[in-house]
Amino acid sequence: MDPKKPILYNYFRSSSSWRVRIALELKKIDYEYKPISLIKDGGEQYSEEFTKINPKQEVPALHIDGHLLLQSLPIIEYLDETRPNEHQLLPIDSVKRAKARMIAEIINSGMQPFQNLNVIKRVAAETQSEEKKMEWIKFYLTKGFKAVEEALQETSGKYCVGDQITIADLCLVPQVYSAKRFNIDLNEFPNVRRVNEQLEKIPEFIKAHAHRQIDTPKELQEN
Amino acid sequence: MDPKKPILYNYFRSSSSWRVRIALELKKIDYEYKPISLIKDGGEQYSEEFTKINPKQEVPALHIDGHLLLQSLPIIEYLDETRPNEHQLLPIDSVKRAKARMIAEIINSGMQPFQNLNVIKRVAAETQSEEKKMEWIKFYLTKGFKAVEEALQETSGKYCVGDQITIADLCLVPQVYSAKRFNIDLNEFPNVRRVNEQLEKIPEFIKAHAHRQIDTPKELQEN
Repeated sequence: MDPKKPILYNYFRSSSSWRVRIALELKKIDYEYKPISLIKDGGEQYSEEFTKINPKQEVPALHIDGHLLLQSLPIIEYLDETRPNEHQLLPIDSVKRAKARMIAEIINSGMQPFQNLNVIKRVAAETQSEEKKMEWIKFYLTKGFKAVEEALQETSGKYCVGDQITIADLCLVPQVYSAKRFNIDLNEFPNVRRVNEQLEKIPEFIKAHAHRQIDTPKELQEN
Repeated sequence: MDPKKPILYNYFRSSSSWRVRIALELKKIDYEYKPISLIKDGGEQYSEEFTKINPKQEVPALHIDGHLLLQSLPIIEYLDETRPNEHQLLPIDSVKRAKARMIAEIINSGMQPFQNLNVIKRVAAETQSEEKKMEWIKFYLTKGFKAVEEALQETSGKYCVGDQITIADLCLVPQVYSAKRFNIDLNEFPNVRRVNEQLEKIPEFIKAHAHRQIDTPKELQEN
């Protein structure tokens, strides 16, 4: 075992874990995959063992260069700063960087929090209605995709921002997957669909896909 | 009128607007303050006039260098990259940058979305209970501050990350203000309180405060 090999604590279907997996693939970083089930036993992230590693009891958590890093977007920025020679995840131009980060944030702070497992459980419990829960998810995801679609009309080329794969693309693919899981109608968002289809063909994106991880349940496994 | 003077579309009490105001002060950028009330007439951000400027109908929106930038953290990163000679808002060291961004994200994606005006209105409507709404806010803010406090135990000096004012501090002060508004008990978070008290004394933070803006209602005005 290489003691310096980075360790990614993550869950196959966590969209923020998935973003980091794509970044690690694009940066050609060999890493150890430690599955932390967000479902098993009420959530393995709350276990005594994992709490010792990460008191914030969340994934993704990346142990790299002697540090435990949290929060997907800061992790991706860190990888881009410390491994600049592989695929750059932020454009060189500052305005384009701002646009890529903007799209990433629309997804990260404007969509993901509202489909978070614990949040939607709480919504279901408070409203005592699975239907209300689904309406909640649909409302926020549709609102978010509308904003992403408007952004892509201005910024997209082959990918979210021009023809370079950026931090925005790393957020888009897992978010579209979640949308499909929740039966969100994506017909109104042609740019979202077009860019997502391009991205899904890229080997690093294929390798990082939720359905191709060691903790993916058998019935979802794709090979 | 200087046509090149940046314009900040914002609202005195919007915490993400406030973050950008602090950044503009620290960067010594003279800007035009355009108030967009999130309350008046159901929200001026939805007006025809503002929708033409920003189809995403949200604040803050910063018009600068010929571009309209959205999302507070990407705006702050942009200001830091394009105005490196004034106060640096991200540390030079990549690990410290990751920690500063992590704290900013705990607040931006882990707390702010759950106290957002439209979100809490929806929670109140769905549960038909003001009490449930307040419980909701209290739950997410307390959870978030617990994570921030744990982070500060490791990273803080005089400020959130060592003795340098960073993007994390720009997020902390408006978040503590919101917590107080919602009567969140901060006694369990001594580092949050200590750092916030230090920050509140800084002239640029005083100038950017919600109670000192042109759209602050008279009864809240501090001078």
